[in-house]
Amino acid sequence: MDLAVSIDIGGTSTKIAIVDREGHIIARKVMSMEGFNNEWDYFNVLFEMIRTLHSNYSRNRIVGVGIGSPSCIPEKGLIKGAANLPFSEEVKIVEILEAEFNLPTYLIKDGNAAALGEGQFGAAKDMSNFIVLTLGTGLGCGIIINNQVISGHFGQAGELGHSTIKEGGRICGCGRRGCLEAYVSATGIKRTTFKLLADFDNKSSLRDVTYNQMTAKGISEAALQGDVIAQKAFLRTAEYLGKQLANLVTLFEPEAFILAGGLAEAGELLFQPTIEVMERQLMSFYKNKIKVLPSALKTNESGILGPASLVWKNNSSMRSSTKFEIGAV
Amino acid sequence: MDLAVSIDIGGTSTKIAIVDREGHIIARKVMSMEGFNNEWDYFNVLFEMIRTLHSNYSRNRIVGVGIGSPSCIPEKGLIKGAANLPFSEEVKIVEILEAEFNLPTYLIKDGNAAALGEGQFGAAKDMSNFIVLTLGTGLGCGIIINNQVISGHFGQAGELGHSTIKEGGRICGCGRRGCLEAYVSATGIKRTTFKLLADFDNKSSLRDVTYNQMTAKGISEAALQGDVIAQKAFLRTAEYLGKQLANLVTLFEPEAFILAGGLAEAGELLFQPTIEVMERQLMSFYKNKIKVLPSALKTNESGILGPASLVWKNNSSMRSSTKFEIGAV
Repeated sequence: MDLAVSIDIGGTSTKIAIVDREGHIIARKVMSMEGFNNEWDYFNVLFEMIRTLHSNYSRNRIVGVGIGSPSCIPEKGLIKGAANLPFSEEVKIVEILEAEFNLPTYLIKDGNAAALGEGQFGAAKDMSNFIVLTLGTGLGCGIIINNQVISGHFGQAGELGHSTIKEGGRICGCGRRGCLEAYVSATGIKRTTFKLLADFDNKSSLRDVTYNQMTAKGISEAALQGDVIAQKAFLRTAEYLGKQLANLVTLFEPEAFILAGGLAEAGELLFQPTIEVMERQLMSFYKNKIKVLPSALKTNESGILGPASLVWKNNSSMRSSTKFEIGAV
Repeated sequence: MDLAVSIDIGGTSTKIAIVDREGHIIARKVMSMEGFNNEWDYFNVLFEMIRTLHSNYSRNRIVGVGIGSPSCIPEKGLIKGAANLPFSEEVKIVEILEAEFNLPTYLIKDGNAAALGEGQFGAAKDMSNFIVLTLGTGLGCGIIINNQVISGHFGQAGELGHSTIKEGGRICGCGRRGCLEAYVSATGIKRTTFKLLADFDNKSSLRDVTYNQMTAKGISEAALQGDVIAQKAFLRTAEYLGKQLANLVTLFEPEAFILAGGLAEAGELLFQPTIEVMERQLMSFYKNKIKVLPSALKTNESGILGPASLVWKNNSSMRSSTKFEIGAV
């Protein structure tokens, strides 16, 4: 059996998996991003994990490595200026992994990887036009139009998280202000919650939680227990997100938006008000036509299945069975 | 010689042309949109004009008719809810023209037609990723990514003019508020000028011009003569446009924006501050990488060449020479 190594690099963890051609995850590991001083510390642990994972399946051939990462330039094989990663300004990740494992290695923007995964195996399996938003530490986005990943002239298109939604607004990891991801992401709702705790005087269980302890999950649990601050935080987040989705409809006309990532696990708390705001804002032609769906993959496997599907796409014997074309890869 | 009839329907005029395979305009006419009570009055004049134009070239074969129009649903061949046209709610324009001329007839959104024209014959001739903005009565937009027109799930994608840029802002022809086209278009700068005439007390030659008389050209001429109100109007317009272009870069990463239409004819008055605002707003990765160019076609022929290129695309003998694929047509 041929297998692919898939690596999903994120702000809080790197997920590593061994995946078969049908998108089954054969084995997996998660490594925290904490405690690394530089990329070499990180790579040493990563290499070790990949070897351990593979050792159990050593009779199977690994045909390639797929990597999904934020802030990457796929056609140059490098990660550049990644604010949330313990990396130097520029890391030639494809070169580094090819040198280590001597396997063809492919790089794709994390958001596009999630979109590929969702389109190949998940909620967008039968769609040609859809947008996947991954609401995690940041806001990842992948846009598929006419079955093509929109990768743009430099291979980094789809950076929806860095659309400016509020002039002079919150400082963002990218160094600018008012980016969508500073409002709509697991971190964004935490910031909104702290703002609400400051602005209002409602009793709230969240007044006993530090900024560093607070999670989207914790806010979601509080909201379900009737915490007014937590509920307001979801409404505000939905207000930002719904308006942005409506604007995206006028530009892309997707059949559906798929919301994945930690914040999306809040379910109806997020989906119901987001859809309401989007519908209110849409041009009349589009009302009640655009779906907003949760990821259909187990605990958001899209991010880890996407890089694997990139390996299969580039592995010639499988070329015909892959649904998507990828512009810049 | 084979010829195509090309029709470019706009809020103030309809342009009709006879175009050859190389994009040469053999003959043309313009009809004003004023004075029509309904679409039948309009079509009677249009049909007559097409017959007159063709009568001079009757030894040549007309192989098809291409139409560029706002508010159209290309795959259904109809114009629907066009706020700026003297039409009923729904006009089956393709059926009507095919019944009249018995020629294959193709419909495309006006903004996409302009993008096709610019890409086939104009400023984007060598580009695969670009966005054309036509700043006329409204704001038309056509987005080409990987040589494909982004037409979306319903064939109307690219309605950049109806992105909401200001909550509770100016009323737009679409019935909503704060749409970009209410600020950035020939009409938009007129509205901005009237707002500035109200807010400030500078002397201005524009204080002697009525709303209905005022044009983007008039404002541009005043600005060149040092009129402070007119100059401010351009700066405000550039502020809105530049920010929006920066947001589009994060989503689409075009190689260039091409600005066409009446307002774009103001040249440096619009381009210089727009580029400045866009650059200020861009993520650092993109700075000094994205071009903002004027249309390279004679007095904005993109809108009339686009529908013609649609005829050639669908005319099988020429299929191979057309650069673009069109999703929904």
